[in-house]
Amino acid sequence: MAREVANRRLRAGIVGGGQGSFIGAVHRIAAELDGQAEVIAGAMSTNPERARASAASWYLQRSYDSYEEMARTEAQRTDGIDFAIVATPNHMHFPVVKAFLEQGIHVVCDKPMTFSLEEAQQLVSLVEEKQLVFALTHNYTGYPTVRHARDLVRQGALGEVRKVLVEYVQDWLLDALEKEGNKQASWRTDPTKSGIAGSVGDIGTHAENLLEFITGLKITSLCADLTTFVEGRALDDDANMLLRLENGGKGFLTCSQIAAGEENNLTLRVYGTKAGLEWHQQEPNTLIFKPHGQPQQILRTNQGYMSDESKALSRLPGGHPEGFYEAFANIYRLAIADIRRVESGEQTQGGYPTVYDGLRGLNFIVKAVESSQKGAVWVEL
Amino acid sequence: MAREVANRRLRAGIVGGGQGSFIGAVHRIAAELDGQAEVIAGAMSTNPERARASAASWYLQRSYDSYEEMARTEAQRTDGIDFAIVATPNHMHFPVVKAFLEQGIHVVCDKPMTFSLEEAQQLVSLVEEKQLVFALTHNYTGYPTVRHARDLVRQGALGEVRKVLVEYVQDWLLDALEKEGNKQASWRTDPTKSGIAGSVGDIGTHAENLLEFITGLKITSLCADLTTFVEGRALDDDANMLLRLENGGKGFLTCSQIAAGEENNLTLRVYGTKAGLEWHQQEPNTLIFKPHGQPQQILRTNQGYMSDESKALSRLPGGHPEGFYEAFANIYRLAIADIRRVESGEQTQGGYPTVYDGLRGLNFIVKAVESSQKGAVWVEL
Amino acid sequence: MAREVANRRLRAGIVGGGQGSFIGAVHRIAAELDGQAEVIAGAMSTNPERARASAASWYLQRSYDSYEEMARTEAQRTDGIDFAIVATPNHMHFPVVKAFLEQGIHVVCDKPMTFSLEEAQQLVSLVEEKQLVFALTHNYTGYPTVRHARDLVRQGALGEVRKVLVEYVQDWLLDALEKEGNKQASWRTDPTKSGIAGSVGDIGTHAENLLEFITGLKITSLCADLTTFVEGRALDDDANMLLRLENGGKGFLTCSQIAAGEENNLTLRVYGTKAGLEWHQQEPNTLIFKPHGQPQQILRTNQGYMSDESKALSRLPGGHPEGFYEAFANIYRLAIADIRRVESGEQTQGGYPTVYDGLRGLNFIVKAVESSQKGAVWVEL
Amino acid sequence: MAREVANRRLRAGIVGGGQGSFIGAVHRIAAELDGQAEVIAGAMSTNPERARASAASWYLQRSYDSYEEMARTEAQRTDGIDFAIVATPNHMHFPVVKAFLEQGIHVVCDKPMTFSLEEAQQLVSLVEEKQLVFALTHNYTGYPTVRHARDLVRQGALGEVRKVLVEYVQDWLLDALEKEGNKQASWRTDPTKSGIAGSVGDIGTHAENLLEFITGLKITSLCADLTTFVEGRALDDDANMLLRLENGGKGFLTCSQIAAGEENNLTLRVYGTKAGLEWHQQEPNTLIFKPHGQPQQILRTNQGYMSDESKALSRLPGGHPEGFYEAFANIYRLAIADIRRVESGEQTQGGYPTVYDGLRGLNFIVKAVESSQKGAVWVEL
Repeated sequence: MAREVANRRLRAGIVGGGQGSFIGAVHRIAAELDGQAEVIAGAMSTNPERARASAASWYLQRSYDSYEEMARTEAQRTDGIDFAIVATPNHMHFPVVKAFLEQGIHVVCDKPMTFSLEEAQQLVSLVEEKQLVFALTHNYTGYPTVRHARDLVRQGALGEVRKVLVEYVQDWLLDALEKEGNKQASWRTDPTKSGIAGSVGDIGTHAENLLEFITGLKITSLCADLTTFVEGRALDDDANMLLRLENGGKGFLTCSQIAAGEENNLTLRVYGTKAGLEWHQQEPNTLIFKPHGQPQQILRTNQGYMSDESKALSRLPGGHPEGFYEAFANIYRLAIADIRRVESGEQTQGGYPTVYDGLRGLNFIVKAVESSQKGAVWVEL
Repeated sequence: MAREVANRRLRAGIVGGGQGSFIGAVHRIAAELDGQAEVIAGAMSTNPERARASAASWYLQRSYDSYEEMARTEAQRTDGIDFAIVATPNHMHFPVVKAFLEQGIHVVCDKPMTFSLEEAQQLVSLVEEKQLVFALTHNYTGYPTVRHARDLVRQGALGEVRKVLVEYVQDWLLDALEKEGNKQASWRTDPTKSGIAGSVGDIGTHAENLLEFITGLKITSLCADLTTFVEGRALDDDANMLLRLENGGKGFLTCSQIAAGEENNLTLRVYGTKAGLEWHQQEPNTLIFKPHGQPQQILRTNQGYMSDESKALSRLPGGHPEGFYEAFANIYRLAIADIRRVESGEQTQGGYPTVYDGLRGLNFIVKAVESSQKGAVWVEL
Repeated sequence: MAREVANRRLRAGIVGGGQGSFIGAVHRIAAELDGQAEVIAGAMSTNPERARASAASWYLQRSYDSYEEMARTEAQRTDGIDFAIVATPNHMHFPVVKAFLEQGIHVVCDKPMTFSLEEAQQLVSLVEEKQLVFALTHNYTGYPTVRHARDLVRQGALGEVRKVLVEYVQDWLLDALEKEGNKQASWRTDPTKSGIAGSVGDIGTHAENLLEFITGLKITSLCADLTTFVEGRALDDDANMLLRLENGGKGFLTCSQIAAGEENNLTLRVYGTKAGLEWHQQEPNTLIFKPHGQPQQILRTNQGYMSDESKALSRLPGGHPEGFYEAFANIYRLAIADIRRVESGEQTQGGYPTVYDGLRGLNFIVKAVESSQKGAVWVEL
Repeated sequence: MAREVANRRLRAGIVGGGQGSFIGAVHRIAAELDGQAEVIAGAMSTNPERARASAASWYLQRSYDSYEEMARTEAQRTDGIDFAIVATPNHMHFPVVKAFLEQGIHVVCDKPMTFSLEEAQQLVSLVEEKQLVFALTHNYTGYPTVRHARDLVRQGALGEVRKVLVEYVQDWLLDALEKEGNKQASWRTDPTKSGIAGSVGDIGTHAENLLEFITGLKITSLCADLTTFVEGRALDDDANMLLRLENGGKGFLTCSQIAAGEENNLTLRVYGTKAGLEWHQQEPNTLIFKPHGQPQQILRTNQGYMSDESKALSRLPGGHPEGFYEAFANIYRLAIADIRRVESGEQTQGGYPTVYDGLRGLNFIVKAVESSQKGAVWVEL
């Protein structure tokens, strides 16, 4: 039964993201930024007290002690939520997503999509069956400059892609924060909550997704050297990988959470037969285009020369910096538009990362770990 | 009569900012970003049809055809707005602000504060009398790096300030857009709507405000050379000024809307007896600190070493870029906190630009224009 | 009588530049870099012992106790020097240059050209009379990127120039080094050796020269505010100036030797009706070109798209950084080529700063000081 | 028999580097920059006419038709050369170096040191036997910032090194220049002149050398994926490698000559347990130091806080850019000082790349090619 969604903001409910979480507030802000949705319900923690306190601090209309109850109850209310936001640790993604989809509620979910590859495969089937919107917050694809980069590749401005260098380096796990009571560090480095990979799952998948998003090329094989540098840590905190792409291109991916002095340095460089491009997440309003034999060009968010898709995802005149929230909000903007379409009986149009991207991400994790465990040898994806 | 404001988002109403406006959406997003307020009413255009269409596109609960009606009506509702947002062209600031303050409604207002110096002076009296929150959106002071810059000066890290260079250069009025039907260009270059200054009022005041905010020093005299480069334009589109500061420091301010190839380049450099600092609005998460004889330091938003005030106005871990909206939202965050305090009978704490900053801005405009008209001679502020 | 200069390096003699001098070695390296000249004689200090020790450390063939003796003797030797390098403090420029020119010896001289405007005027007459090469080392004009910037303006890529911002800020005189025995600081801040200006003469003239070189426009009036910030110093160590250009353009020039944390930051920005450009001496292989409405372009030394003149003054493939010495050496390259031409009875071709640039520099100094002394008022140049 | 070298510039002779060569002039300028040596003889081409024309254009005193003749003749002259500069294609390095060493003449030689690993091993023996100075122009180690980077690692400022990322990417062989008569491209891509590797030999060895120079750590194994992207080319023009270091550190090296839009982008990043550092050859006067939890620092050439070794290899005050020639000249400065020492019967002090670095370079080439040919598998160095 389709809901009436015209003339109102959509209603969202969040699972996870309670006090102490960084990503919870990101989802709320991103979901609400365009004034097209409002978070009104939540099951924000498995700890009931924290769940209620978190909901109160957000002035939510309804707080639940469990996501199951929330899914059931909201599905039956006439003013129930239109979509669920899943912001829990990785091991809970699958059951939570499943609960809402099965109640006919659309879902926006954090990445990596699931705890295991098997769950990811099941989720693909479920989404295909339910015909509901499922958006995965590979948020870096939401930057207008990233969209323009993809457009440059698509329109042939780079020629044939030959070489790709992608890095995502941080230092937030340089020290053993997980032993000092840091909540996020604890679950991120815990194989029972994060899955089989640490840095590769948390940030390596962003790098992999961004590479494939911009180049439109699949990684076909990789040779990965994962390392756990911090003593006593159960998962990798650093990885270097050689990549081969479906078109014969070659590449390199590195991710690290022990790269001293780095904040959140996600950088992508692509080189083709005609030109290169370079993008730095920390200065996301700039895209460097490097035509062979010509001056490098500094492309900037929302300038007239940017592609239509890129401009459509920009909100401010050039020179007024847009950042992390706005890129994240673009995933929501696109997903919300599709939710409105589904509820209005229209065709979806996509544009946001999907369950298939999530599946590729899990496959990437599994193969990277496999490669490394076998001695950093080549494996096919 | 104080309103009950606990346990709910504040309610806001906006005047101006309708379709075709860039700043309207900025106010909505900034006001709502922290989940502490919601825009629910509006008198978004003097054109009733556009007013209603604008309100509908934002899903507002109540749309008014005039700000007077909105002020009167909302003041009497038990669920009326807690504060008004004034996003009209400059000539309407004063009457609109006055209308709401006189109804006991707090106000957040665009800059320059008023059309004329006389209005600014009247507004100071009115705000002093009413004891309501009045916040002026000199939004660039909302950047965490700008706050930290001020803290560095305050704690003496620069020593005595000797030299200040501030620039705000754009190129959006390089061509005579006002003759091509550009709505914003039209009123910005129209003396009956903008006041006696063009670029000096629109962006020069931001530069002046930022300089005084960060250094804590007043400009005591200036020598200004204003120019109208685009033929047929009624107001200045470029200005260069020499400055003298109250402590004997010297400086320079330039603003331009015809600086070809520039987006929104607001840059401040301050040099003291011990160190210098540099900040660029277009890369706002970075503050460069330049101690004499030591390596320059790259200070970044929300890192542990930033000042408490700076960190309190940051929302994301370092390396996750915050931008224009978030800085703007910080003005709202501080103003909303004060509105809650006033309504709860507590002392205000400020932290946002006030009616006195607005008065200084108008005085700066008047003196810059006077200096230039007399042949670019020195005038006292 | 023309010398035979084919098939050999030219022979140069240096006055000044002895031990403790920074600029002496710069002249030697720059003069010899292309293998077209060799410094073989010198009167490197007024202190005879230091003169001899300096000459010995350079393996010079001949050391003189005075420049007069050097000029006389070298002029009579069949293997005498072809040109003299003048690297003394400012007050000695005129007598030394005069001595060599009168002996028929070409001259390359440091800037500012002379101690006073009167000397500069006399030097113009002398050079015109003697028909010898006189090159002034406004070395920043030697950068290939600066040449290309001039070419961009000349070919109309910027349209009509409207606004010019030029800065030259350092901090090497932040402390009173002249009281601590620093040789260079001592004469730089001594009016009997430097002339009537400090920072304006030392670096302000570079800024003025660069501005006029690149834009091809004369400064017609200025309003200058000079300051001596360091107590007890006899000359200005900081200046801010408003400028007006012959074509109606406006501008700003600042120079400072007390700008804490700055090294040698000479920056020029020019804005025209079509595009802007930006150049930073500290990263001299990059020129930023900013066409209105198009992406900014990063132009780099010796790339194929650079102008012929720019490439002719580049020595290395793009990406192999050229710096201060190489730019300085370009002044020598051009001057040496003209010396060869004069000695071979050919027409000179110029390309290096001349006695007329030197005269403009002195005039600029005189007018800046006059403006400031009268209270920072406008004066005509 | 020791030569008398006091009180004069050393005399050098060059082999190769004739007209059409880029590196010949680099050697001359670098050798002569400090005024401590002069190139006076040459066998600049195997083509006798070009050899003579090249020598004449440099005003050399003596031109030879063959290096053998030059070695024999110069060794017997009382005013013969003190050292030879070897600037030929790779396949000639060994015989030329051997000829001069056997005549008792010191050598400065281009890299890679020899054509094959066997030659490299023989050269080590020969240099050990002859007790002459042999310097290899791994010129990037000559940058003062690179020296300071090494000092930071040595003094423990980074803690234990964990991760190293080194890149050297260009685009000068993006097109098949070797088919268009480009002299340098021809021999660089010709296995009979370059050896078994293309990009890996030409620039990969620079990256390898720089990594080991700065970190002081040996690469113990690598997994290399070499590619020839340009059709018909006989050698690799691109490579990606995983690295493992002797202390357990991991790393990555990429080199490419088909990276569209890149000039000469050699970049090194090192991450330790306490801090990281970053250096870009294209802006070589800056070294970025990244202490964990503290602001990044911008270290600049010749500032007071730089290490003594770094400052000793700087020539200009901070802010006066030094570049490629000056770094190259530092290799010569150190080698020339050692030549003076040897000739004066003193102990050598080194500081420049040696025959052992050359051997490591050849070994690196051999192992990278072997790894790649076996399918990009791990091999021990």
